[in-house]
Amino acid sequence: MHNAQRPSTMPIHKYRPYHEQINVHLPDRTWPDARITEAPRWCAVDLRDGNQALIDPMSPERKRVMFDLLVGMGYKEIEVGFPSASQTDFDFVRQLIEENLIPDDVTIQVLTQAREHLIARTYESIAGAKQAIVHFYNSTSVLQREVVFRSDRDGVKQIALEGARLCRQYEKTIPGTEVYYEYSPESYTGTELEYAVDVCNEVLEILEPTPDRKVIINLPATVEMASPNVYADSIEWMHRHLAHRENVILSLHPHNDRGTAIAASELGYMAGADRIEGCLFGNGERTGNVDLVALGINMFTQGIDPQIDFSDIDHIKRTVEYCNQLPVPERSPWAGDLVFTAFSGSHQDAIKKGFESMAAKAEAEGVTIDEVEWGVPYLPVDPKDLGRSYEAVIRVNSQSGKGGVAYLLKADHALDLPRKLQIEFSGVVQTKTDAEGGEVTSDQIWEIFNDEYLPADDTDHKWGRFELLATEIRSDMSGDVSLDAVLRDDEERTTASGRGNGPIAAFIDVLHQRGFEISLYDYVEHTLSTGGDAQAAAYVELQVGDQRLWGVGIDGDISTASLKAIVSCVNRSIRTKAAELVTA
Amino acid sequence: MHNAQRPSTMPIHKYRPYHEQINVHLPDRTWPDARITEAPRWCAVDLRDGNQALIDPMSPERKRVMFDLLVGMGYKEIEVGFPSASQTDFDFVRQLIEENLIPDDVTIQVLTQAREHLIARTYESIAGAKQAIVHFYNSTSVLQREVVFRSDRDGVKQIALEGARLCRQYEKTIPGTEVYYEYSPESYTGTELEYAVDVCNEVLEILEPTPDRKVIINLPATVEMASPNVYADSIEWMHRHLAHRENVILSLHPHNDRGTAIAASELGYMAGADRIEGCLFGNGERTGNVDLVALGINMFTQGIDPQIDFSDIDHIKRTVEYCNQLPVPERSPWAGDLVFTAFSGSHQDAIKKGFESMAAKAEAEGVTIDEVEWGVPYLPVDPKDLGRSYEAVIRVNSQSGKGGVAYLLKADHALDLPRKLQIEFSGVVQTKTDAEGGEVTSDQIWEIFNDEYLPADDTDHKWGRFELLATEIRSDMSGDVSLDAVLRDDEERTTASGRGNGPIAAFIDVLHQRGFEISLYDYVEHTLSTGGDAQAAAYVELQVGDQRLWGVGIDGDISTASLKAIVSCVNRSIRTKAAELVTA
Repeated sequence: MHNAQRPSTMPIHKYRPYHEQINVHLPDRTWPDARITEAPRWCAVDLRDGNQALIDPMSPERKRVMFDLLVGMGYKEIEVGFPSASQTDFDFVRQLIEENLIPDDVTIQVLTQAREHLIARTYESIAGAKQAIVHFYNSTSVLQREVVFRSDRDGVKQIALEGARLCRQYEKTIPGTEVYYEYSPESYTGTELEYAVDVCNEVLEILEPTPDRKVIINLPATVEMASPNVYADSIEWMHRHLAHRENVILSLHPHNDRGTAIAASELGYMAGADRIEGCLFGNGERTGNVDLVALGINMFTQGIDPQIDFSDIDHIKRTVEYCNQLPVPERSPWAGDLVFTAFSGSHQDAIKKGFESMAAKAEAEGVTIDEVEWGVPYLPVDPKDLGRSYEAVIRVNSQSGKGGVAYLLKADHALDLPRKLQIEFSGVVQTKTDAEGGEVTSDQIWEIFNDEYLPADDTDHKWGRFELLATEIRSDMSGDVSLDAVLRDDEERTTASGRGNGPIAAFIDVLHQRGFEISLYDYVEHTLSTGGDAQAAAYVELQVGDQRLWGVGIDGDISTASLKAIVSCVNRSIRTKAAELVTA
Repeated sequence: MHNAQRPSTMPIHKYRPYHEQINVHLPDRTWPDARITEAPRWCAVDLRDGNQALIDPMSPERKRVMFDLLVGMGYKEIEVGFPSASQTDFDFVRQLIEENLIPDDVTIQVLTQAREHLIARTYESIAGAKQAIVHFYNSTSVLQREVVFRSDRDGVKQIALEGARLCRQYEKTIPGTEVYYEYSPESYTGTELEYAVDVCNEVLEILEPTPDRKVIINLPATVEMASPNVYADSIEWMHRHLAHRENVILSLHPHNDRGTAIAASELGYMAGADRIEGCLFGNGERTGNVDLVALGINMFTQGIDPQIDFSDIDHIKRTVEYCNQLPVPERSPWAGDLVFTAFSGSHQDAIKKGFESMAAKAEAEGVTIDEVEWGVPYLPVDPKDLGRSYEAVIRVNSQSGKGGVAYLLKADHALDLPRKLQIEFSGVVQTKTDAEGGEVTSDQIWEIFNDEYLPADDTDHKWGRFELLATEIRSDMSGDVSLDAVLRDDEERTTASGRGNGPIAAFIDVLHQRGFEISLYDYVEHTLSTGGDAQAAAYVELQVGDQRLWGVGIDGDISTASLKAIVSCVNRSIRTKAAELVTA
């Protein structure tokens, strides 16, 4: 069975392999025998490296939301901007300090190039903070020395040393602030190791690290240029050769050009690093920074406390998507919409048996299922630990080649369901058709969809506690909206008022007043047609009490459609609860 | 500077570290000193593992498109389905064989469980093929033996051996087909190594591999359970202990649960594997199979021929998005919309200097720039080699905190530009405002957008060779559409007719007749409002001759909007060419 592959015509002659550019030689490496046993120091750089790679950089308001999220999750070192390069960043740092928004145990970090006017401006930005990390850098790679600086090794080293000296000097201008230092030989992966360690060690001489005031030496894979074992070798080499090692915090900052940043971080950490910089879900320049969520939850699945709270991954995802205005991909580790979904019958069967086996063990041992060691095939983590659920998707019609449920709803009814709703609804179809078996027609799917999500057309089959009868929405352009609604609440016609930053928030306020604990997880809308009688469909994912579920609303007015979707969701929630009571 | 991180409340007690579950001990490993020097045998499993993980599995037509893409790229081993588990898969395999669609040097592969009725059906499916790989598997992990099979080591081994015997037996039913074998101890990463090698070696005894008829032993990370160095250790261990090693093709099949499948593949390949199974852009169960695009282009950037053609990555991406009905993420390695984009001024400056330096070298050496070694900061590959271009995005207004160009167009004009168009238009804004400096207002942005993409309202400022005056579209529901259009072609009013599978294809046909080489790369549309006079916006990305660019059309009718977008694009192309002639 011979290999039939043929040479391509890709211009490989243009590229020189990494090992011919940079010599990394460490035959007595020890990292492959190491194991990760505790969390590194984390530094989240979403507000700097992440933000600078966005099509639409974060507004001050989105920056605040991101900062609060990172603090809430447990990050204690947060790079908040590049204040000397950006007025927005400068203003944001000032706001954090002046409005006292930084918890005492959180240290902000600011980036600057190693140039005097930028350093001066950087110290201006952090004046008044209790503590801060000043992170200065200059590029040291062979390529950048040649094409950008047109300078030799010594010339480029002097930039770093001068930067270090200036930092020490400007430090005196803000005596009230405890200043710590981080130095990055930027484009480290393109730098000769002997030269990189020489620059770092001379910088350290100037910064004079002590046990109480360690210095962070950050070794960025500014561009990921080689496989992750090579990065790990280089980190172990630096770890052995850095001066003042006991007073140095060795930090990693991997980018993901080759798609191996997570591996590079893990192997580099095993190789002697203390600290990792990255972004949630791997946002960042080009292919991104290393994904802090994947790194943290990878540890969690090995019984190691990440020291970060990932227990509501959907909330984290939603917030990051809002701040970055970029979607988290469907297959993003531990967080994507599809990662806890099993489509294959044999997988579903094995998962079911795994759950049953755990339940049996718990019963035999007289403990709850949460005290039993996790062991379910195809589910390396309990989705519940991340605030998610496992979804078994039985595809309807998948064997007939006509496409599945989502396809038919789109083709025949112009409804473009969000992926998580597609998954939820597949479960509904499955339940309702299990008894019957055989192929399900598009008409049956539409009937099931109507029954499940939409109010009945005829009054005889009406279901659901609430119905929206009339609304009045007023805005004074202040960003706040007030809503008056006429509702049917069971048999009673009632009026209610609520306020919020939009109609949805105002209506959730109305329901809060009626005792519902509701928070919004996702909201999607689209028009159904382009004709004169355009209808719009709105989809909302809500947490209602302890349930996470979707609602759907269809109306000629998009605001009304979204309110109807909330009603649909709440009514479904009540119906499910009632069904559970009957079953129990 | 002490570490302020605190324990989280994540339930780490539920998880046992991998090394306590499976013993992988190889202190004398050699793979960390190995280097990749040539492409492995590739096997693309998009039509099986990829397809089974889709919300909407591929229709027969989408399967054909995927198969043709994989063949065109140069893949010689393609897993085309699980014919014994799915009638659609069975029919597709039959179609490939009966319609003679498999090139002589391509081998199809079919998956089956090691059970008799499924094996019988599998051989039925491949009858008549010149050659095929029968890939049989059974799950061997500790967990699955316990909870799924409720059997011991020997019981589970017998499933594999019986499967191998049945394969040899049924092989005789299709004497005209050259049958090769692949065996997978499924859930290999959860299996004790001594047991895995025992099962594989006994399977090999039955399959009797020879130099002419090697057997593939595939070691799947069905679930990625540990860091990639551990997978590499386990592969090197198996490589040393497999019987008939010279006649065994050792294959990897990494999944991406921990986000390290690319690394696991690379390190596993260095550890002695010969072959890698994966999917384009990492589609597949949960977090996906390993990404074949990243693996191949990673090799390319090291001067190693991947033996796969990635020279039109956008075409590949577009086709895969069509087949999978899932987007390729913005930061997907080498292929995402944002991976060749530089937002930071210092990056842009360095990139510019890199290009200048290469041009200077080429001139000094008297060669073309494509003969000079690639070396541009922040661009580890020449985007041109993948059919892409580098985009320097200068953000307008990013400093003012009001949001960028895309934000303002959406907020003030309801236009939701596709990301690549956002990037293109940012470049346009940059060019037109460079001279002026300072902040650009939303009105100015709208004026620039109008000038660039939309026809002028007043006849005095009309620009563009073509204008759409009237259209008539007829469909007889056969899937084919015919279009009659009245066009202004410069000063002349003319009529034209075209055919295609939709209005866009038909209009491209019209332009083909006028000598334009056009192909469609992307098409997006949305409505601008939900009122009674709803307008729609359409965006198209076309290749027009040697230019790749976008066009925009706005109209009350969505079909007309899309045709206007094509006109916009072609007119822009002509204008750009004219401008180049003037400059040259």
